[in-house]
Amino acid sequence: MTSPSSSAFRVGLLGHGTVGSAFHALLEERAEAIAASVGLRPELSGVLTRGRGDFDDIVERSDLVVELMGGLDPAYEHVMRAIRAGRHVVTANKQLLSHHGEELYAAAREHGVQLRFEAAVCGVVPVIRVIHETLAAAHIQRVHGIVNGTTNFILSEMTTTGASYEDALAEAQRLGYAEADPTDDVSGRDAAAKMAILARLAFGAPVHIDHVPYEGIENLSAEDIAYARELGLSLKLVGSAERVDGGIAVRVFPTFLYAQHPLAAVNGSFNAVTIESPAITEITLSGPGAGGPRRPRRCSATWCRR
Amino acid sequence: MTSPSSSAFRVGLLGHGTVGSAFHALLEERAEAIAASVGLRPELSGVLTRGRGDFDDIVERSDLVVELMGGLDPAYEHVMRAIRAGRHVVTANKQLLSHHGEELYAAAREHGVQLRFEAAVCGVVPVIRVIHETLAAAHIQRVHGIVNGTTNFILSEMTTTGASYEDALAEAQRLGYAEADPTDDVSGRDAAAKMAILARLAFGAPVHIDHVPYEGIENLSAEDIAYARELGLSLKLVGSAERVDGGIAVRVFPTFLYAQHPLAAVNGSFNAVTIESPAITEITLSGPGAGGPRRPRRCSATWCRR
Repeated sequence: MTSPSSSAFRVGLLGHGTVGSAFHALLEERAEAIAASVGLRPELSGVLTRGRGDFDDIVERSDLVVELMGGLDPAYEHVMRAIRAGRHVVTANKQLLSHHGEELYAAAREHGVQLRFEAAVCGVVPVIRVIHETLAAAHIQRVHGIVNGTTNFILSEMTTTGASYEDALAEAQRLGYAEADPTDDVSGRDAAAKMAILARLAFGAPVHIDHVPYEGIENLSAEDIAYARELGLSLKLVGSAERVDGGIAVRVFPTFLYAQHPLAAVNGSFNAVTIESPAITEITLSGPGAGGPRRPRRCSATWCRR
Repeated sequence: MTSPSSSAFRVGLLGHGTVGSAFHALLEERAEAIAASVGLRPELSGVLTRGRGDFDDIVERSDLVVELMGGLDPAYEHVMRAIRAGRHVVTANKQLLSHHGEELYAAAREHGVQLRFEAAVCGVVPVIRVIHETLAAAHIQRVHGIVNGTTNFILSEMTTTGASYEDALAEAQRLGYAEADPTDDVSGRDAAAKMAILARLAFGAPVHIDHVPYEGIENLSAEDIAYARELGLSLKLVGSAERVDGGIAVRVFPTFLYAQHPLAAVNGSFNAVTIESPAITEITLSGPGAGGPRRPRRCSATWCRR
């Protein structure tokens, strides 16, 4: 059963790897529910993969282009051309946004199209949307978060088992939480890209990944973790973006958190972001990040008292 | 500096107590930012208080009516009349929604107006919005949360200090977290009303507060808390709404949570809600609830490693 085509919107998909094909399946599965919720039915109008599909033809037949290729080349050129052709764009590409955010935002404004990127940071956790909507009601003072699931998994593993960094990394790789070359995650660079995107959104200021100082977890040892534990603290890789002296400071560093801090109890591959503002005090959002296997938490370990 | 009146939207305010007057001040403070964000400038068109203002006149001169009177009478009649006059309505009134939700939703649909109620549950934490938007992308399986700040403050106080229920309640009253008559909070009834609202939204099914079994915290003792602690568990007043055997189960009960549970570390007067779905696994949102004094957490207790 399909609605009249007048209420359809045509989605062109760039990229059909793990994320692209999962998106493709979910789009078909949820088409009815999306139509019921927003009044427009999504219909896939074309898929561009390496060696298949014609970019110009797909753009021509789409209202919205979804970029799930990753990387800068050819993603940047494709997204820019789609925007200039007057198409709305959704991308999950944090590299693209943290390197070319300004050009892309400017082009989207100029051509009157929307550029959306909820999935670029914190997977299913609607951090981007909540920051964006918070802005209308409140002046954001600070955003900080655990935005890389791989490093949080490794630090949690070191804390729980007393493992060395090397052993915890190997375990993360074995379970699919870390890639064979984990540099981008463990160096803090992936978190820096995400914080650049969040800072740009929260403060409306141009922030390029090259402006974000970062330090990763490669030099942390079992002793650092034991030391934190002894003091009742959690050691986490925290990204922060805040207003300081009329400017904006964005950075990523291993940080000790006291036990009651809203980010202290975020464990495993989970992500979390706290948004602080005088008007709202603070909101924390948490959930599974984008990377790694998606394994639901077991639910049966809560039970009622009587 | 004001925009042309063509881009204004007129807000009629019902109620000018603590919440109403705070809303009034915030509306004026944020008018520019709201105009910049949504393209429409809010302008207060009238205020109805006990003994001042004419309801019909205010509705006549408003595009949107904000109900912050609380209680059922005359709030229900006012909101219904505003909807029937074709006005959008925003209310923070959980009693109203948990008693008369069905009639109000039906009237809003019939008259083509929006009925919004983000602040009715969990204060500034955008639980309503995230549930609503999650629905388009995912089938929600369960929503559970700590939705009453007063009882969470009391339980946190008992846990931290070993105080009895009576002493912790007295402390909560002294600090402004509990009212002189705390029955609605400590009995679990306030949480039941909020869970009725969340369940209705998450599952699209009519849920009246009278359908929600609840138990409060009045019978919990320092021994219960000590017992939980001994086992490494947190004792929380948890509301849950879930799909069970083709139906929906909604309830509020004191619950033991294992230490890694996303709600276990939610302390003081904070609220938190977890949304579970196979597609998203889970998202948790937390922040200060609506009740009690608004005291920002001290920030200086995080620090960088180098």
